[in-house]
Amino acid sequence: MEIIDCDVHVYPRNAEEIKRYLPQPWKHRFHIWSNAYYAEKVETNRTVPPNGAGPGTDPDFLIRQLIKEEGVAQAILLPRANVSIHHDPDQAAMEASAYNNWLSDTWLTSHNPDGVFKGSITIAHQDPAAAAKEIEKWADHPHMVQVIMDTGARAPFGQRHYYPIYEACARYRLPLAVHPGTDGMGVNILASQGYPSHFLEWYAGFSLSMQVHLLSLLTEGVFERFPELKMIFVEGGIAWLPALMWRLDQEYKGLRSEIPWTKQMPSLYLKEHVRFTTHPLERPEKDGDLTDVLAMMNCEDLLLYASNYPHQYCASPRDLHFLPETFKPKIFAQNAKQLYRL
Amino acid sequence: MEIIDCDVHVYPRNAEEIKRYLPQPWKHRFHIWSNAYYAEKVETNRTVPPNGAGPGTDPDFLIRQLIKEEGVAQAILLPRANVSIHHDPDQAAMEASAYNNWLSDTWLTSHNPDGVFKGSITIAHQDPAAAAKEIEKWADHPHMVQVIMDTGARAPFGQRHYYPIYEACARYRLPLAVHPGTDGMGVNILASQGYPSHFLEWYAGFSLSMQVHLLSLLTEGVFERFPELKMIFVEGGIAWLPALMWRLDQEYKGLRSEIPWTKQMPSLYLKEHVRFTTHPLERPEKDGDLTDVLAMMNCEDLLLYASNYPHQYCASPRDLHFLPETFKPKIFAQNAKQLYRL
Repeated sequence: MEIIDCDVHVYPRNAEEIKRYLPQPWKHRFHIWSNAYYAEKVETNRTVPPNGAGPGTDPDFLIRQLIKEEGVAQAILLPRANVSIHHDPDQAAMEASAYNNWLSDTWLTSHNPDGVFKGSITIAHQDPAAAAKEIEKWADHPHMVQVIMDTGARAPFGQRHYYPIYEACARYRLPLAVHPGTDGMGVNILASQGYPSHFLEWYAGFSLSMQVHLLSLLTEGVFERFPELKMIFVEGGIAWLPALMWRLDQEYKGLRSEIPWTKQMPSLYLKEHVRFTTHPLERPEKDGDLTDVLAMMNCEDLLLYASNYPHQYCASPRDLHFLPETFKPKIFAQNAKQLYRL
Repeated sequence: MEIIDCDVHVYPRNAEEIKRYLPQPWKHRFHIWSNAYYAEKVETNRTVPPNGAGPGTDPDFLIRQLIKEEGVAQAILLPRANVSIHHDPDQAAMEASAYNNWLSDTWLTSHNPDGVFKGSITIAHQDPAAAAKEIEKWADHPHMVQVIMDTGARAPFGQRHYYPIYEACARYRLPLAVHPGTDGMGVNILASQGYPSHFLEWYAGFSLSMQVHLLSLLTEGVFERFPELKMIFVEGGIAWLPALMWRLDQEYKGLRSEIPWTKQMPSLYLKEHVRFTTHPLERPEKDGDLTDVLAMMNCEDLLLYASNYPHQYCASPRDLHFLPETFKPKIFAQNAKQLYRL
């Protein structure tokens, strides 16, 4: 079966790989961000390259593990620059731009002779106008297939100051992926559960960040304003989706006068405009409970296969053996091909 | 069928009814709080008493509508003092205490000849030690059956500074209800989705506030530390519960070394210690989808019937006609009788 992996993380080997694209004073101030707030508590060795460097830094090793052994036909690369951590919007925008240059020169060109890698344009949502310019700069790149930004933010994503980002994504038909990152850290009290005490609480709460942003996007009418906009909610699960949409659709019936720009049930915008990735899918004791919940909202049309390689929790296509056979071609490849026009 | 209504709101007729229990300077500073941030956008006339006063202020009218017409045998009263809005913890604690005096003298005594009304001890979570004293003061009251606090807070409820509240609730075997209120307002950025733009977004987001607090309580090990503590999550729905617990249980397997005080799957603590109210239940197009989801976690053992009377969205037992017959005795009365020892 054809497999497109929609959540693969690649990293620079060292800070110099990014610094070469940064002018001063940003170069001087740059360091590779590591999560000192909610550090992961379980380590993996499986994705460490033979030279002992960081996971996701060695193209030969990544191609062997992900492309050859797992049989992935195309991998959508999501660099994790975590630029939303910065108080200074210029530092954030410059680093986003440097990551884009780095990705283009390395994983999308020199490491990409077979064209199996597709890239994401990193943006900093602190300055939406600058982010829109960054999107414009890369929109014609043959291997950049989407835009990526972190969920950690100071306001939910439906609010108006973000609209230059959506306008640019819609204009260039670039889907916008939102990925967990910096939630509850530094300036980013939102969207998150605030300041959890442990990594487990923080990690399980990604699904709540996603719901906060989704609720905001749907009630603010973003998809009515930007009919070409598509978004992907990465790494936040999906089993919560029916409950949220049932609640929202139900209350919309009584309260739609408050948001008159929303002209149809919120769940209809969702189905048209929003996609989700499979990893980590919620896993009940009985697989059938999950597939029943997925079927309630035709989630087989909304899900994109994702491994989260090379993180410790990374998944394999085999982990989804329990899905109904009718779901698999859509989830493993068809939905992604349609979304990214691959 | 016997019906116990676990979410009925009563209000003072005017500020004087509360002020008489407040010493100066708190009396001078008191006013009945009205939600100027996310005001409800739909009005109801049905629960306005014949004298035109505020809904939930007239005992004769409430008894006629709720007890006689709906056939409710006992009503758990939850005053909505919204004391969590205060920056000043003393103002909050004094107002909570005044509301308790008022509730005891009126709805639990002079308005309660038949004993159909049971009350909630209002506390302000800004000062947990003061809240514990307030609980202790009312613990022996014959009609006070639980403690109530608002979900709007500065930190999620699993964190340690709240423990004096849980210790007092556990000691006196008083269940602790958490009710939406002041989320995203004033000092309370948590637990909420931050600062939504519209009432609909805010209201639909109650379920997210509940999940934030629940995740915190379960990962911090509150129910292991306080084995007698029971909590009720009021007005936040329940259809999201399987998805959240699947995610949390799954991640617990890999990350339990981080929270060693949690000795069993988080969902087992949940089933033992946490209850939810029925209003507003999420309502999909197909009733069967909801009952399927409820059955996945035996939610018939976790749910308490609640009308939310006299608010505009208040429900009737008839609204739950679609529930399986085997669920109804538990949800309408048995679960509440067991929890409140009625």
